[in-house]
Amino acid sequence: MFATVDAQSMQRLTRDAKLEQFEDGQTIFRQGDHALHVAIVLDGFVKLTRTAACGDETLINICNVGESLYEALTPDGESYRVGAEAIGQAHLMKLSAPRFRFMLRESPALASAVIEEAARKLSGLIGEIESLKGQTAEQRLARFLLSLCPPNAESCSVRLPYDKRLIAARLGVKQETLSRAFAKLREIGVRTETRDVSIENVARLSSECCGGEREPCLPSERRDLIESRGALA
Amino acid sequence: MFATVDAQSMQRLTRDAKLEQFEDGQTIFRQGDHALHVAIVLDGFVKLTRTAACGDETLINICNVGESLYEALTPDGESYRVGAEAIGQAHLMKLSAPRFRFMLRESPALASAVIEEAARKLSGLIGEIESLKGQTAEQRLARFLLSLCPPNAESCSVRLPYDKRLIAARLGVKQETLSRAFAKLREIGVRTETRDVSIENVARLSSECCGGEREPCLPSERRDLIESRGALA
Repeated sequence: MFATVDAQSMQRLTRDAKLEQFEDGQTIFRQGDHALHVAIVLDGFVKLTRTAACGDETLINICNVGESLYEALTPDGESYRVGAEAIGQAHLMKLSAPRFRFMLRESPALASAVIEEAARKLSGLIGEIESLKGQTAEQRLARFLLSLCPPNAESCSVRLPYDKRLIAARLGVKQETLSRAFAKLREIGVRTETRDVSIENVARLSSECCGGEREPCLPSERRDLIESRGALA
Repeated sequence: MFATVDAQSMQRLTRDAKLEQFEDGQTIFRQGDHALHVAIVLDGFVKLTRTAACGDETLINICNVGESLYEALTPDGESYRVGAEAIGQAHLMKLSAPRFRFMLRESPALASAVIEEAARKLSGLIGEIESLKGQTAEQRLARFLLSLCPPNAESCSVRLPYDKRLIAARLGVKQETLSRAFAKLREIGVRTETRDVSIENVARLSSECCGGEREPCLPSERRDLIESRGALA
């Protein structure tokens, strides 16, 4: 996220940053809490959820290496609109929210980086809405698997980044529906063994389920980062 | 959106801005077109849609007075990620996209305004995802109606801002499902006559359908603007 921000701004921005480690399932912050920090994922995955007044919890997003939890903030920046919890072990950098806001006004490069990150997040959520409104479970699963494949692979093996219960929640389908979708994709050469997935023909998966469109969710630098940390096979 | 931007920046930003009027159903830009402009809605409503390779169209958002069509841009700003079409008559201001990007680096106030707008849009899309994943059709409709009510109204009459076919698409339900949802809400004092809706008890609608939560989609200044233009009753 900060690749284009100058060293001096970064130094000021991170002066009182905290590095924290969270264990699987540990709360990072709660929905409604006063927003003291802008958090950035340095390693692992973070689950963002909204809890309705009746107690129902909805998975909104899963953020990974290099992403800020920027969408967690309410538009006024006062409180967290969602809750955040570690999936597996996660490392985060927490920047002071007031300093972050102050620095945004001081550093055009930081402001640009935040605008770009926001554009990527908007784009991701638009893809999510399109998928929720218009796609079958197989199509959603195929799209998710394609986002894990290296850009020009003909065939590949990937490791699911988190368990199937969470993947179902992310795709907005029941667990049984996800199992049926995996079974259907087997017919076109997608095989799973626990968390390892082999895709015989990436182009076929794309053309049969997504009309040939491939829109990887992860920019390639981010994928490299995740791969180098062993989160993908 | 530009309330906090200084006059000098505004003057430079709008130097080669174009004001354009579109008729109902007229295309503003197409998905995939080269992104030459950042458009802002001055009057009316604009429908943003994604079209999949197979031709299926999904309604992503409906933007109204004072909103930019910022989410239409791809993260790299090169092309439009969605298509835009006028609903009814719409007036738009089109700013040159390269100038806009240049000015973002020059004017911290403009950058802040864009970041705030992006945060509002993210927040809106998060609400949409929560609704699509976790709410019934009645709950979605109730939430939509509540977003049209004035902040502290006990009872009120509102005019639906666009037709029921579009409302169904926005809420991600079929038209028959929307009709059934309207019929169910009648039991708790919500009456409709074509596009006029009267809500006997706003608090009851909120508590029975949304667990008492009220989260208006429209900031109050924007609602005032829409009201003064007669789009709401």
